[in-house]
Amino acid sequence: MLITRRVEFSASHCCAQASLSEAENRALYGEEANPRGHGHNYAVEVTLEGEPDAVTGMVYDLKQLKQVLNREVVEPMDHRFLNYEVPPFDRVVPTAENLAAEIWRRLEPHFAAGAARLRQVRVYESYEVFVDYMGATR
Amino acid sequence: MLITRRVEFSASHCCAQASLSEAENRALYGEEANPRGHGHNYAVEVTLEGEPDAVTGMVYDLKQLKQVLNREVVEPMDHRFLNYEVPPFDRVVPTAENLAAEIWRRLEPHFAAGAARLRQVRVYESYEVFVDYMGATR
Amino acid sequence: MLITRRVEFSASHCCAQASLSEAENRALYGEEANPRGHGHNYAVEVTLEGEPDAVTGMVYDLKQLKQVLNREVVEPMDHRFLNYEVPPFDRVVPTAENLAAEIWRRLEPHFAAGAARLRQVRVYESYEVFVDYMGATR
Amino acid sequence: MLITRRVEFSASHCCAQASLSEAENRALYGEEANPRGHGHNYAVEVTLEGEPDAVTGMVYDLKQLKQVLNREVVEPMDHRFLNYEVPPFDRVVPTAENLAAEIWRRLEPHFAAGAARLRQVRVYESYEVFVDYMGATR
Amino acid sequence: MLITRRVEFSASHCCAQASLSEAENRALYGEEANPRGHGHNYAVEVTLEGEPDAVTGMVYDLKQLKQVLNREVVEPMDHRFLNYEVPPFDRVVPTAENLAAEIWRRLEPHFAAGAARLRQVRVYESYEVFVDYMGATR
Amino acid sequence: MLITRRVEFSASHCCAQASLSEAENRALYGEEANPRGHGHNYAVEVTLEGEPDAVTGMVYDLKQLKQVLNREVVEPMDHRFLNYEVPPFDRVVPTAENLAAEIWRRLEPHFAAGAARLRQVRVYESYEVFVDYMGATR
Repeated sequence: MLITRRVEFSASHCCAQASLSEAENRALYGEEANPRGHGHNYAVEVTLEGEPDAVTGMVYDLKQLKQVLNREVVEPMDHRFLNYEVPPFDRVVPTAENLAAEIWRRLEPHFAAGAARLRQVRVYESYEVFVDYMGATR
Repeated sequence: MLITRRVEFSASHCCAQASLSEAENRALYGEEANPRGHGHNYAVEVTLEGEPDAVTGMVYDLKQLKQVLNREVVEPMDHRFLNYEVPPFDRVVPTAENLAAEIWRRLEPHFAAGAARLRQVRVYESYEVFVDYMGATR
Repeated sequence: MLITRRVEFSASHCCAQASLSEAENRALYGEEANPRGHGHNYAVEVTLEGEPDAVTGMVYDLKQLKQVLNREVVEPMDHRFLNYEVPPFDRVVPTAENLAAEIWRRLEPHFAAGAARLRQVRVYESYEVFVDYMGATR
Repeated sequence: MLITRRVEFSASHCCAQASLSEAENRALYGEEANPRGHGHNYAVEVTLEGEPDAVTGMVYDLKQLKQVLNREVVEPMDHRFLNYEVPPFDRVVPTAENLAAEIWRRLEPHFAAGAARLRQVRVYESYEVFVDYMGATR
Repeated sequence: MLITRRVEFSASHCCAQASLSEAENRALYGEEANPRGHGHNYAVEVTLEGEPDAVTGMVYDLKQLKQVLNREVVEPMDHRFLNYEVPPFDRVVPTAENLAAEIWRRLEPHFAAGAARLRQVRVYESYEVFVDYMGATR
Repeated sequence: MLITRRVEFSASHCCAQASLSEAENRALYGEEANPRGHGHNYAVEVTLEGEPDAVTGMVYDLKQLKQVLNREVVEPMDHRFLNYEVPPFDRVVPTAENLAAEIWRRLEPHFAAGAARLRQVRVYESYEVFVDYMGATR
């Protein structure tokens, strides 16, 4: 059984490598390389896997999941310029791929010991582009 | 090949255990425990797996799938208070998890003998929370 | 200039007149008359009219508008059975029409004195049915 | 008869007055005042009013409308930091209100002489907040 | 008070004038002029205006409105090639504008005598293009 | 890591076998068998699987993916009657299942040699019906 909760935040990012020229970055990332940054209303869907508890009928406490997502994702990232204000994106290009992996890295410790395991992090940059990350070992 | 059909219905539910006090249920389920119930516009996406027929190009007859979904899900559940009017939710807490499992239980016999097998039931309680159930053996 | 903010809540309701029999209510409201109630994920879009302030560029402080909507609409109505828990719906049938008028009645005093006026309350019962109320004098 | 076309773009903005301190801006605009900026997937719905041509059945040529919207809105604003790269937002706070008025200002000359008149510009900052502007004289 | 109900149907259409050459039609309507036709999932939102009944709390019986919309719009137009199968589109170009006006013409007699008046017909050709028609006298 | 890009196009189709009578096709496909055709706003979500490049942080260049999707899917299919204008649908019934398989067939050669592999093609005929194809060998 999988249970998924969605949260949203607004942030800006710039896709560019510090080691490359602006022209090289523009060739690589197109409009996304604008150094001033641009923004998205990001949506993140986090999926846990487990069996529903025989008594409560719940895979995981959704109130608690919401708190974890707010603390680890929404509060640090909402209304931020990811490259300047949210590590490790001062060193790592904040593509949707890297953003999904970073959100996984922040969330996984919360689900290491309990009955529910982190199964997937989906990041929507827009309704047209999204990324799914299922952890490093898959 | 997977084919998915979505249906929607409006129902109310209350997440609480008869054996617990209202305060205990409130601690466990939060606002969902309100004994008067509250409601959702539920959406259910049912996925079948099979090969498209070489002649018809169809995995399953979508008209027939719609009839099954209406008879087993929409008609008995739409505009109902699940805890009082839709068994087994008089005995089982109607969390999204248990609702997905019950819908699976109702649908599976219809796809036991044919070329298409029931693969997944997704239940959206809202656009922010949804559950996927793929059957007991997975 | 109009500015609109959307909030959502989940509630159940029952459309029936206490003075009528269940059969009469069923004839009048159809499935909506089920006395156990059924539910919706309601969405409410509240529209204010005004001129953007020359300095701030804002018609109204959106943070403050969110607080008003939470206090007057979401907190009292979310996860409630409107007929039993949210006056005046113990006496007034909670159709979408009456719900929009009641939300207007609750919000209007907040916008009586300032530069922005309440212009419209839209209530979505689902994406298929919605109501717009623009106040009694129009 | 009204005809509406929707376009979308991704941009970042910062809501702050140069003449105010960061603390003052934070009090006024909240998280929106972050000087690094943050971003949105903006959607703009532009509405023209006119009678459908008796021969073509069209109020306005939708292909031509798309070209105007791309040239005046999407190309200059997409993947930009509005405050730094899109005048007059170096001097004017890019609230949704001011953005709607600026888009109106850019579009209106294109519809001054023809059979269709610009009627409304709607700007969605997210699905939760949007602004409608109908021109200065209304 | 306004109440709106949405219905959807799938149809194909071709935007071309019989009196013009294919090249002329292509210049006028672009890809829409393909004589084989192409299709849309149309959505129609029909808005009635009236006061909610003091007893029932309803502007109009939504069950009855659904029946009218099914009989006048969905049944004759769903899964049809509008130009060949739905008069007057054998003679009138089925632009979204003309489609909205035709739906108005079909619906208006149903609301001529009662307490609720037809106020607006909105036709979505896609989420990017829609038309609003409010009747000939406006 | 999976990355998905969505494109949309409008087309019409007719689900019928040339070897069968209209009545037989009507029994098999229902309204979909109307020989004049009917239409949809199709949405296609194409998913690639790979590891994000250590330098660029990208599984695949999204600009290039968009070009491939435009050239192989949108340009040949948009505003077309699939049965008459898009091979092999002159011989193969254009059900959503067969459309997904054909789009897979067109896209797969583009991803045979690189680091990212084609993983899934999803075709939405409407928001209520969609198909997933993951290639012949699964």
